[in-house]
Amino acid sequence: MMAAGRAVASPGTELVPLTASRGFPYIATRAEAQVGGAVVLEMLAEAHHTVDAAIVAAFGDPGLLGARELFDIPVVGVSEAAMLTACMLGQRFAIVTFTRALCPWFRDCVDLHGLAGRCAGIVALEGPVPSIDAVQDQNEQRLVALAQETVRASGADVLIFAGAPLAGLAAKVVDRLPIPIVDPVAAAVKQAELLVALNPRKAVGGGFARPGPKSSIGLPAPLTDRMSHADAQS
Amino acid sequence: MMAAGRAVASPGTELVPLTASRGFPYIATRAEAQVGGAVVLEMLAEAHHTVDAAIVAAFGDPGLLGARELFDIPVVGVSEAAMLTACMLGQRFAIVTFTRALCPWFRDCVDLHGLAGRCAGIVALEGPVPSIDAVQDQNEQRLVALAQETVRASGADVLIFAGAPLAGLAAKVVDRLPIPIVDPVAAAVKQAELLVALNPRKAVGGGFARPGPKSSIGLPAPLTDRMSHADAQS
Amino acid sequence: MMAAGRAVASPGTELVPLTASRGFPYIATRAEAQVGGAVVLEMLAEAHHTVDAAIVAAFGDPGLLGARELFDIPVVGVSEAAMLTACMLGQRFAIVTFTRALCPWFRDCVDLHGLAGRCAGIVALEGPVPSIDAVQDQNEQRLVALAQETVRASGADVLIFAGAPLAGLAAKVVDRLPIPIVDPVAAAVKQAELLVALNPRKAVGGGFARPGPKSSIGLPAPLTDRMSHADAQS
Amino acid sequence: MMAAGRAVASPGTELVPLTASRGFPYIATRAEAQVGGAVVLEMLAEAHHTVDAAIVAAFGDPGLLGARELFDIPVVGVSEAAMLTACMLGQRFAIVTFTRALCPWFRDCVDLHGLAGRCAGIVALEGPVPSIDAVQDQNEQRLVALAQETVRASGADVLIFAGAPLAGLAAKVVDRLPIPIVDPVAAAVKQAELLVALNPRKAVGGGFARPGPKSSIGLPAPLTDRMSHADAQS
Amino acid sequence: MMAAGRAVASPGTELVPLTASRGFPYIATRAEAQVGGAVVLEMLAEAHHTVDAAIVAAFGDPGLLGARELFDIPVVGVSEAAMLTACMLGQRFAIVTFTRALCPWFRDCVDLHGLAGRCAGIVALEGPVPSIDAVQDQNEQRLVALAQETVRASGADVLIFAGAPLAGLAAKVVDRLPIPIVDPVAAAVKQAELLVALNPRKAVGGGFARPGPKSSIGLPAPLTDRMSHADAQS
Amino acid sequence: MMAAGRAVASPGTELVPLTASRGFPYIATRAEAQVGGAVVLEMLAEAHHTVDAAIVAAFGDPGLLGARELFDIPVVGVSEAAMLTACMLGQRFAIVTFTRALCPWFRDCVDLHGLAGRCAGIVALEGPVPSIDAVQDQNEQRLVALAQETVRASGADVLIFAGAPLAGLAAKVVDRLPIPIVDPVAAAVKQAELLVALNPRKAVGGGFARPGPKSSIGLPAPLTDRMSHADAQS
Repeated sequence: MMAAGRAVASPGTELVPLTASRGFPYIATRAEAQVGGAVVLEMLAEAHHTVDAAIVAAFGDPGLLGARELFDIPVVGVSEAAMLTACMLGQRFAIVTFTRALCPWFRDCVDLHGLAGRCAGIVALEGPVPSIDAVQDQNEQRLVALAQETVRASGADVLIFAGAPLAGLAAKVVDRLPIPIVDPVAAAVKQAELLVALNPRKAVGGGFARPGPKSSIGLPAPLTDRMSHADAQS
Repeated sequence: MMAAGRAVASPGTELVPLTASRGFPYIATRAEAQVGGAVVLEMLAEAHHTVDAAIVAAFGDPGLLGARELFDIPVVGVSEAAMLTACMLGQRFAIVTFTRALCPWFRDCVDLHGLAGRCAGIVALEGPVPSIDAVQDQNEQRLVALAQETVRASGADVLIFAGAPLAGLAAKVVDRLPIPIVDPVAAAVKQAELLVALNPRKAVGGGFARPGPKSSIGLPAPLTDRMSHADAQS
Repeated sequence: MMAAGRAVASPGTELVPLTASRGFPYIATRAEAQVGGAVVLEMLAEAHHTVDAAIVAAFGDPGLLGARELFDIPVVGVSEAAMLTACMLGQRFAIVTFTRALCPWFRDCVDLHGLAGRCAGIVALEGPVPSIDAVQDQNEQRLVALAQETVRASGADVLIFAGAPLAGLAAKVVDRLPIPIVDPVAAAVKQAELLVALNPRKAVGGGFARPGPKSSIGLPAPLTDRMSHADAQS
Repeated sequence: MMAAGRAVASPGTELVPLTASRGFPYIATRAEAQVGGAVVLEMLAEAHHTVDAAIVAAFGDPGLLGARELFDIPVVGVSEAAMLTACMLGQRFAIVTFTRALCPWFRDCVDLHGLAGRCAGIVALEGPVPSIDAVQDQNEQRLVALAQETVRASGADVLIFAGAPLAGLAAKVVDRLPIPIVDPVAAAVKQAELLVALNPRKAVGGGFARPGPKSSIGLPAPLTDRMSHADAQS
Repeated sequence: MMAAGRAVASPGTELVPLTASRGFPYIATRAEAQVGGAVVLEMLAEAHHTVDAAIVAAFGDPGLLGARELFDIPVVGVSEAAMLTACMLGQRFAIVTFTRALCPWFRDCVDLHGLAGRCAGIVALEGPVPSIDAVQDQNEQRLVALAQETVRASGADVLIFAGAPLAGLAAKVVDRLPIPIVDPVAAAVKQAELLVALNPRKAVGGGFARPGPKSSIGLPAPLTDRMSHADAQS
Repeated sequence: MMAAGRAVASPGTELVPLTASRGFPYIATRAEAQVGGAVVLEMLAEAHHTVDAAIVAAFGDPGLLGARELFDIPVVGVSEAAMLTACMLGQRFAIVTFTRALCPWFRDCVDLHGLAGRCAGIVALEGPVPSIDAVQDQNEQRLVALAQETVRASGADVLIFAGAPLAGLAAKVVDRLPIPIVDPVAAAVKQAELLVALNPRKAVGGGFARPGPKSSIGLPAPLTDRMSHADAQS
């Protein structure tokens, strides 16, 4: 994912990878997203003062709306960025992924963003996934075939290869597919840069104002402080 | 909330209150729901073998879909139960709550359940909330007036008083309002009993099958075991 | 249908079957539902004082909304109950029935309840229906195969076997299908019990208040009286 | 209503008023529409061979879809005709009527026709209705004021005065309102003529084929015969 | 197209074909519709005083909404007329055309009219189109087969053969298809006659009032004058 | 508008203003957008080889989809860019403009982009517009008051000041409003840069492939050549 991001980052942009100290190696279901999204808040509570913007780098955008409330910096999700970017390249996008286990969670994500009317379909390879690390290399031809069939059958104008194991695939196979492909990580890096450049104010009204001070028990100190407004900054 | 639940529970039903050992005293925003929903999974990982069904007792249903995937028992959310029950009493329900801070999160919840077309509105008292404990007593008249105005202006057929501090209010004010009122806790207790009686099978396919075994780091032992399938039961 | 209902009814619940003295042996189209729904009102005008709640026991819910306006007791439709119950077991349900002739009417019903967004599809056996009485026995294997294919292709999380001739099928075939199945009659019995337990007030405002007194010509006496408010009770 | 229809009927068109021999003087609620719609089928079973097309002349279109299935002639509803005609005069129409009691049923009707996205609102006079016969004369100024306010506030492009007592009002007040007004009866007469002229085939497939032969008990002879296919014609 | 229109025009109706002096021989894409729609405005600026109503006779309705704003006469689009007419013959229509290149533009058109909920599908022949003039003759059997399959698979109640080269096809093949077929040109002629007969007022408010005077550069004189209100009439 | 764009353009980005040689000084209605959108295609046919991306700089995005089909470079609309950018700052945006005459066209635009579910409202100053040039200066306080009221009443999370005369207003008044404001021109410049950086392939399939060669009459030479594929490049 870092490679896909660096390939498009602007000269002045430094990408700082954060890996959660707790949680799952990757996120594939609603249950994992619920936990993973909470970990996103914990991580950002610690790191938000050190960066200009944050990217939630799991397709499905776990914790995105909560992070957008809680922190003053722009926060972008990779699926959100991919879908919104795709909207500028055609009327309908299709999401292609590597296992059907991801589809229900991805559908929830499309609905969360109110983009069901622009989604031509969510499709996945059939069958078991041998190893996450080898997904892209071992299945490149099957993924391209699935994408080609999806273009034909769904009427999609744009493709999104979704799921961390597919990061970077778009660039490799672009010549074998007849429509534009959006790489979620690349889109997110550029949309985050865009928001930093536009420098929008942090909401103090509406539905994304920072929540009022709230006591809590048993959360990591940075998140505790962010929730209680004990943190000095912002 | 326990009182509201016990008032309608069937003779053979025992309500077992679980209070999170970590998290927030109550949940009012998306950020809090993200964390609170993860805590729901932790708590159910510990308790699910000891009960026949679970109720997520915060309006907004934090963690509901994840819990429904992860555990074999029926899991019901209070907002879900209230809205679905309201659907049997009229075509459109309105949600009345005590502070506008809750409205964005509640709207997300209505959308999550695909019931926006049946929601006549989400309304709230204006102004600050002095104390959660005293919300209901101090604002009863204002809440009734708001509900009456909502019936008149929104065309709602059914009302839902939403938010833990309003549990039990419906029964007190029913005679002052011209349409049925659903108490979320009462509805959830009865819907949970209903699901236990119908005894549906746990999905092993579709979008709510239990996720496959997943390693994790740093989660409480019961959730770790549930995620990794190290738990013996179910 | 009585067997399916009795199998889940609570100890104190007595199910009283009412068969229309006029109309059709079963309802399969909009025209039949229009007439059948009017007969529902006639029957309930006669019987509503003798029961605590009513179930409209034809999938498609003929006459449901009119009955909900007109009478003081809770009225539940079997399709409504099945769909709302299914919503607590997954995000999307599929409806499986035995003849394509029913599908248009069922689709109208899903739309009436505002649940199209949660419906993964309405599917039916192809070909003629030899005998309503023998539908279930003669087609069990075909129905299971259709349901299995529907789970695979539609992404449904829950199944509903719809149509009176399929009452009770869910219990027989549950082990051959990977997702929960809701039996409409069973769901309706339990939802009716639930509404009786919650004891909501009858609307005197909103869209389900009893209509004002209305004269009529040529209707059966009990319905005439209910419409004109000549009936003493309620 | 006949006057409003005759004012626009083509030279060769004869309007034949049918008044139900049973039912209500006018229809204002879902319960009345359920019964009235069944009576529509009874009446058309008797009369359909004597006319080229039929108009269901109660706003809300009781029995429309059932009649469209059951008979071979075109059947048009006044609300349907009004709304579809309005769609050719602007993007969004508003429905203005004389009592709030009608609004819920009218909203169901808009939804039934799938036109909620083109409906800018359904509004009604407040307060009681003294006499149906005098509604239009006594309230003309209030209705015009309500319509003017609706144009201003709702952004409607077209108005529909709905309800039998308002038939003919559009022509009287057109100069006092800034946007086109559709009279439902006038629209229905012309749309019925249009369908007769286009002479579409009766469906023998899809969702509006005539239902297969069905036995029944206790229905009027013409409807019994139409349902059982005992009628010789068509 | 003139033949299809004349076949249904009323005795007093004269159809005046206007062919654009600039633009494309037929319109198949959004880019062509953008230009063609502007040419529609130019043509109507010249001709609107000489006719009682106008028909935009390209499926997709290029320029329709602009023309409806700008001119005082009724303006009808062939796709709009076909779809609205189809709505009176069934709940869902399918659009059948001769090349997939048209489908995206047609889908935009369905959405523009807010009728996606009543559209069962837009289907097209596969493969290249040899000659527009010969489309109908050379492909009649393939189009009928496609339409038959669409009726079976999509659940459509009504068919629309769309695209100028298919004008008149409906009448030829009606006996080979089980559901009603709407010919867009025929529907538009009749709907235009209907609007002339109803004689709605031109909006001076709402979203279809004539735009205020606007200066312009380089447009044909009649359109320049219509935009600047320099035209004497209306 | 150039000032608003230059304020955010990246160092390497040169903004090249193109002013149409024909058409209107600004675009406010559907009729003007129809013509203006055709002019957009004419202008781009001449200029597309000389730039890396194009911005359609009239709120409402006239000609956008046609341009996206016809040319190989990315094309972005200012309203599209504003709305998609706003989607990353909150769940619902409101559009604020200076005259109600623009609202119908803007609503069409929101619908075209499938974003109605994320639009909290489109609001405008009441009353006449004295001079386009002076709109912003003379009405700043009224626009801020309208925006403040909109935040309060609509529940919007983000604001968009729409219409060329309001370009640059967002930056001036940001401190007087409690939620982020997106300037359409600024958003479009950054989204255009983003698309150039991501360098998506031009579609040769789906709904945005370049249309096949098409003859035309009377169009400007560059557009004629682009439509007929007589242009050498791309």
